[in-house]
Amino acid sequence: MRVFTHAHLATMNPELPGLGVVENGMVAEEKGRIVYAGPAKEMAADEVVDCENRWITPGLIDCHTHLVYAGERAAEFEARLEGASYEEIARKGGGILGTMRATRAASPAELDMLARKRLAPLLAEGVTTIEVKSGYGLAPEAEYKCLEVAYGLGNTADISRTFLGAHSVPPDCPRTEYLRLLCEEMIPHVAKHHLADAVDAFCESIAFSPAETEMVFAAAAKAGLRVKLHADQLSNLHGAALAARHHALSADHLECTDEDGARAMAEAGTVAVLLPGAFFMLRETRLPPIAALRQYGVRMAVSTDLNPGTSPMFSLLLAMNMAATQFRLTVTECLLGVTRHAAAALGRDDVGVLRAGAKCHLAIWDIEQPAELVYRLGFNPLYKRIWSAS
Amino acid sequence: MRVFTHAHLATMNPELPGLGVVENGMVAEEKGRIVYAGPAKEMAADEVVDCENRWITPGLIDCHTHLVYAGERAAEFEARLEGASYEEIARKGGGILGTMRATRAASPAELDMLARKRLAPLLAEGVTTIEVKSGYGLAPEAEYKCLEVAYGLGNTADISRTFLGAHSVPPDCPRTEYLRLLCEEMIPHVAKHHLADAVDAFCESIAFSPAETEMVFAAAAKAGLRVKLHADQLSNLHGAALAARHHALSADHLECTDEDGARAMAEAGTVAVLLPGAFFMLRETRLPPIAALRQYGVRMAVSTDLNPGTSPMFSLLLAMNMAATQFRLTVTECLLGVTRHAAAALGRDDVGVLRAGAKCHLAIWDIEQPAELVYRLGFNPLYKRIWSAS
Ligand SMILES: [Zn+2]
Ligand SMILES: [Zn+2]
Repeated sequence: MRVFTHAHLATMNPELPGLGVVENGMVAEEKGRIVYAGPAKEMAADEVVDCENRWITPGLIDCHTHLVYAGERAAEFEARLEGASYEEIARKGGGILGTMRATRAASPAELDMLARKRLAPLLAEGVTTIEVKSGYGLAPEAEYKCLEVAYGLGNTADISRTFLGAHSVPPDCPRTEYLRLLCEEMIPHVAKHHLADAVDAFCESIAFSPAETEMVFAAAAKAGLRVKLHADQLSNLHGAALAARHHALSADHLECTDEDGARAMAEAGTVAVLLPGAFFMLRETRLPPIAALRQYGVRMAVSTDLNPGTSPMFSLLLAMNMAATQFRLTVTECLLGVTRHAAAALGRDDVGVLRAGAKCHLAIWDIEQPAELVYRLGFNPLYKRIWSAS
Repeated sequence: MRVFTHAHLATMNPELPGLGVVENGMVAEEKGRIVYAGPAKEMAADEVVDCENRWITPGLIDCHTHLVYAGERAAEFEARLEGASYEEIARKGGGILGTMRATRAASPAELDMLARKRLAPLLAEGVTTIEVKSGYGLAPEAEYKCLEVAYGLGNTADISRTFLGAHSVPPDCPRTEYLRLLCEEMIPHVAKHHLADAVDAFCESIAFSPAETEMVFAAAAKAGLRVKLHADQLSNLHGAALAARHHALSADHLECTDEDGARAMAEAGTVAVLLPGAFFMLRETRLPPIAALRQYGVRMAVSTDLNPGTSPMFSLLLAMNMAATQFRLTVTECLLGVTRHAAAALGRDDVGVLRAGAKCHLAIWDIEQPAELVYRLGFNPLYKRIWSAS
């Protein structure tokens, strides 16, 4: 048994209020699992880690990323600042299709190398669990390749995989044919070969309609996979309510979600995943319906949305600051949003909390109070990351 | 002689357009100075650093920080998100006066330790020159103490010091008496003992009026010190024009500056220092007059404004992204803003540029194009920082 002593804990235990704070606490671990997290007490241990009054939180969880891709879009970012239109950028091979082409062309080894470079700053911030979506292959083998690459990252962090074939219709496949491929081939294949834990879709006028999303979700249900949804980011297609009807684990973005959507999510237990990086980069002005989400008791998660187009963001600490500054989430909401509520967005309760039975993923911080994790921009006070592979 | 070969250069040389790019270039250094920066050629060298096709920029310059203080304000940040008013926070000992009390109480060794913790992430991003203001002591000895601490940081970076006694009127000194202290004691003392390179003031309804600022600037001129100004951040008191009349090195913030202010700055050669972190944290909506600054040819710098109240920002790369995203600065403007134009804001031409004669402060980057330095949020592609102490 290993014990972490002289620590203050933000346990995120739902039986305690707020962050579940235990000052002068300790954590005990055995075989990669927490066996005790609470007030300091005498315990016989093989190894003692003296935390010297630092704070311990659960290892952080980034519950919405598009980590695996090739084809950066810095040139496109530069061109947009110089006034180029989306059409000009698309004509020059930019946009999501540029990423799709580069991702298709890249070998698994190249994709792995690129993904690990992007993962490194997240791990350095104490992230121990990360969701990774496919969605830049947009063809069966290319999508499976990305999900396999995501699996390979499992030697550095706890990876949850999501199949996002329904990210965009690729230009080389008729729309109805692509939907057939998604529903009749790709989703059954992903389920059969355990390539992903959930199915996601991008429900928007520029991507998939609500009716098409329903088809994708029906195929997921048939294959025994839970669903998530990119919902109501740019317009209110009632994606949040649609997600709730399908008992989605989460509905993500939600800038244009209305009160009915929030209520439906609460009834279904669907988590609201807020993505302040994309909000910032797109200079959006319409805020997610935070007051309604609070009122109905929808759990809120916060994530980077790490992707090359709308959120090239590699810091979950920064995502928390942006959620606080832009969306006025409280410090407690932000921290639950990257721990217990982020776990819920992945359908998990074995991470994101310090309590007996949970995986022993810890972040030990050089801070005097949890608010410091949200307050600063671009400062990483991580002292140590404990990740239990088992 | 040491040479850096197989590198692409963004020289920032004003004789070249834009970033002064030299692909397939090299830099040669002798005794801490650049002796050559240009196309690759044969040179006899004692030491060869093969940059393997990476990019070299001048070491970055953060030209506006309040780095030296004690008294973090994370609790205040948390309270504000929970709805506390500024009055409540002030009653509980928060705000600038809380920082003042903690800074006065801290020993030089404590202030040094705190400042070095904050400096570390900036250095890790290739910052080699940093401006440090006093302004949390607000009494003679406390102000001098902070400037001495800033001097001590000179073993890790090139430090420019600015005296900002005119940050706020301390509560324990009558207004007229504090102004007398500033003009008749502190500024002459700072000049005589070479404690700072410039004098700054906060010209705002909540701080010093334009007439009071003029008094401070007159004292600075008399003492032979250049001036800078926190101008037009929250309201248009015509601070930019005031700064220009006094041939200020820079006028900083400028959210409320009008076209006349921009024109006056251009005529005086005053640099516009843009501070997108404070803009973000304060959720401002009024943008600095970028179009007018461009039209009149005012040089624009970008800085963190690192301070505990309105911009707890520790990343100059993030400041660039925020300047691009929020203010629509181009990639070229952002990069000039943390190199050559930031140097100009400090009255210097020996840093911020790769050319013979300049100090050999380099940042070597693992990137394929300079736009990557601005495009990402929370990702640090620095390969190596070269800082020449001499
Ligand atoms: Zn997404
Ligand atoms: Zn300032």
